[in-house]
Amino acid sequence: MGRFITLEGIDGAGKSTQAKLLAEALRAEGRDVVLTREPGGSVGAQEIRRLVLEGNPDRWSAETEILLFTAARRDHLERLVEPALRAGKVVVCDRFADSTRAYQGLSRGDLCDKVDALHKLMIGREPDLTLLIDMDPATAWGRAMGRRGSEERFEEFGLEFQERLRQGFLELAKRFSDRFRIVDGNRRSEAVAADALAHARGALA
Amino acid sequence: MGRFITLEGIDGAGKSTQAKLLAEALRAEGRDVVLTREPGGSVGAQEIRRLVLEGNPDRWSAETEILLFTAARRDHLERLVEPALRAGKVVVCDRFADSTRAYQGLSRGDLCDKVDALHKLMIGREPDLTLLIDMDPATAWGRAMGRRGSEERFEEFGLEFQERLRQGFLELAKRFSDRFRIVDGNRRSEAVAADALAHARGALA
Repeated sequence: MGRFITLEGIDGAGKSTQAKLLAEALRAEGRDVVLTREPGGSVGAQEIRRLVLEGNPDRWSAETEILLFTAARRDHLERLVEPALRAGKVVVCDRFADSTRAYQGLSRGDLCDKVDALHKLMIGREPDLTLLIDMDPATAWGRAMGRRGSEERFEEFGLEFQERLRQGFLELAKRFSDRFRIVDGNRRSEAVAADALAHARGALA
Repeated sequence: MGRFITLEGIDGAGKSTQAKLLAEALRAEGRDVVLTREPGGSVGAQEIRRLVLEGNPDRWSAETEILLFTAARRDHLERLVEPALRAGKVVVCDRFADSTRAYQGLSRGDLCDKVDALHKLMIGREPDLTLLIDMDPATAWGRAMGRRGSEERFEEFGLEFQERLRQGFLELAKRFSDRFRIVDGNRRSEAVAADALAHARGALA
């Protein structure tokens, strides 16, 4: 059985960059690594991703969003993550269920119980290690706004939302302290990557 | 509070025609009627509908399908059905949660418990009256094949699947006998419509 490593954090915290650097570093050590992301990561999930991330902020209610993200996650798990883990690979995933917990469960109304029940019912899988790239929301927000594209629904919720989101991730790190490791993202990319790799080596030992 | 009437049955049983005739008949009696359908019925749900109904039969697993149909249902409920019911209208809906119970819960693996748990968690609403248009699968199948378009994923499952589906709907009619009424669809459209209207009048009295 392989190992499932996820990266979490607010928009602009550097998750995608760190996921790539981590996958490269682990490959350089001879490991078989699958780098993927959510929402997306499989053909079907990618189509659902477009539905959820494009368009007006009020396009979907938080409840409908949870269902769409969970549908995309289920497809991604079935088609890519589970087969890779069964083949003994290391799966590095940019965002997973903790993003749903933070975005829909903690930051947009109090849907925690629904998010948890839905996860238990239709997903089940938890990561072996979750790296929370923790960063000052104002700085991260500036980065996220600098690269705005068509997938801007959540950015539209504003800086205050990012601040609530950061608190949400920190709460999750306490709740799931066995698998969460907090990495200070307010530093040069190389320093962040070195910490991330150290934690990953620990989980893979 | 209005009344929520759904029509269910296998592909080609005449649900859409009967839903239209019923809405017209109730309007002719002076009632304020909203005619809608699932999957679809709202802008967002319609986009999800395309994802689910087009493409290869094995495009989605039954579990992912349940999640997508439930997402579409939630959107449709929030944006159209619940506001219409609160405004005291009669909502006539071509397919609802019983289709998910029959298609994914009973006919494609044994997912009944998951379908029920998901419905309870994210939807909750049951119809006041459900008209099951019951029909010989071979005849209905011929009709459904005659109008094949791009939304053919479920038709690809074949006649044997339609037979299991019919049994599934009949089981649901027993399980929810308080709200289900079985209408014999193996007759001229006018005769079927007369029975449907009589049941609807009963539910609206």
